[in-house]
Amino acid sequence: MSDSERHINRAMLPEPTLRRLPWYLAYLKMLDSKHEEYVSSTQIAKRLNVDASQIAKDLSFLNIKGKTRIGYEVHPLTKALTEFLGFKHRHNAYLIGAGSLGSALMRDLGLMQFGLNIVAAFDINPEIIGSAVGNIPIYDLAEFPSRQRSSGVAIAIVAVPFESAQEVADTLVDSNIKAIWNFTPFRIKVPRNVVLQNTSIYSDLALMYNSMEANVNNKNNTK
Amino acid sequence: MSDSERHINRAMLPEPTLRRLPWYLAYLKMLDSKHEEYVSSTQIAKRLNVDASQIAKDLSFLNIKGKTRIGYEVHPLTKALTEFLGFKHRHNAYLIGAGSLGSALMRDLGLMQFGLNIVAAFDINPEIIGSAVGNIPIYDLAEFPSRQRSSGVAIAIVAVPFESAQEVADTLVDSNIKAIWNFTPFRIKVPRNVVLQNTSIYSDLALMYNSMEANVNNKNNTK
Repeated sequence: MSDSERHINRAMLPEPTLRRLPWYLAYLKMLDSKHEEYVSSTQIAKRLNVDASQIAKDLSFLNIKGKTRIGYEVHPLTKALTEFLGFKHRHNAYLIGAGSLGSALMRDLGLMQFGLNIVAAFDINPEIIGSAVGNIPIYDLAEFPSRQRSSGVAIAIVAVPFESAQEVADTLVDSNIKAIWNFTPFRIKVPRNVVLQNTSIYSDLALMYNSMEANVNNKNNTK
Repeated sequence: MSDSERHINRAMLPEPTLRRLPWYLAYLKMLDSKHEEYVSSTQIAKRLNVDASQIAKDLSFLNIKGKTRIGYEVHPLTKALTEFLGFKHRHNAYLIGAGSLGSALMRDLGLMQFGLNIVAAFDINPEIIGSAVGNIPIYDLAEFPSRQRSSGVAIAIVAVPFESAQEVADTLVDSNIKAIWNFTPFRIKVPRNVVLQNTSIYSDLALMYNSMEANVNNKNNTK
């Protein structure tokens, strides 16, 4: 079913809701694999530490309602969530920067399960240009504009050294890329009509170190 | 300098501040590599799209103040931020789950630059137990408790199929792991004294797909 058939306005969806939907999906997939037929919002709430009313509200954005006393049907809800989150469709993407993080992403077959298909990578390092990781070829970044023009790929994953992140992003935007998934810690600027998604695994690492340090300091203070 | 020497209370640090600090660091490192001596908060603000007063406030948590009309000294600030964020020290970690995502993390030398050193991986797949990725050996998960007991490693990275995420986390906690970096979309539960850091790259992917879809719908509506 399309968004308009479901009467869904994506721009109205709050980001926290969007961030919780994949949690529900993971839990539902597990129940589905165990052939559970129904699940209540209370059950999801208990398992995921989210308020039951919040879950009902989140799912209502997808125009999905549970049945009184029975709850949600596991299999249809799993399917609806997978489709809504865009994990069912195949999204072709280019990878820019096939260094350590980039080639790790090329090897992560997990991305494919979530609908992301890396069709080619681009780099400036002559030692890797012309080679491949798995079945994914690595081209010269200089060839990007001409290759992109004929392909119509909409997504580019940026995994270059952060010093070159903005310059690379500018090239991508000029070549009509519609969405950039930025893995560098550099805050890229893009025009308003281009989607920018930042993933900062190193920021998460800093958060974890900080909580660990806070725990240690806390213990020392209460000694 | 230690936290107490700097009079820093880590538990008081707001998460948004902690998330912004690595952005400042990336920008400062770039300036440092160009041998720039000073940077003003206005300059950082303009480049990173963050309010100048917010930057001054964020850095004041580290008890770092800029000089009037000159700004911050680039090199010392870069060093202070690197140290504060825990990227300078070496944190040993175990990886649980050496599948596609897990082995990608083992190959990502980028983590090492941010202080994270994966010393060993654990898995249940007999085909990979006993092998290694790079220099990192893969052991049988059943050996985890005994190996962990003698090592004193504090951090475990969880990259197992989400169905087993909670079970694995329980084992880790029982074996005295102090911090879990969870790469699965499953909401793990841990005791309060254990640090849990979630990194959901697939949630970010869902956010990106949604923004792309919203852009398309928006264009269609205004036609």
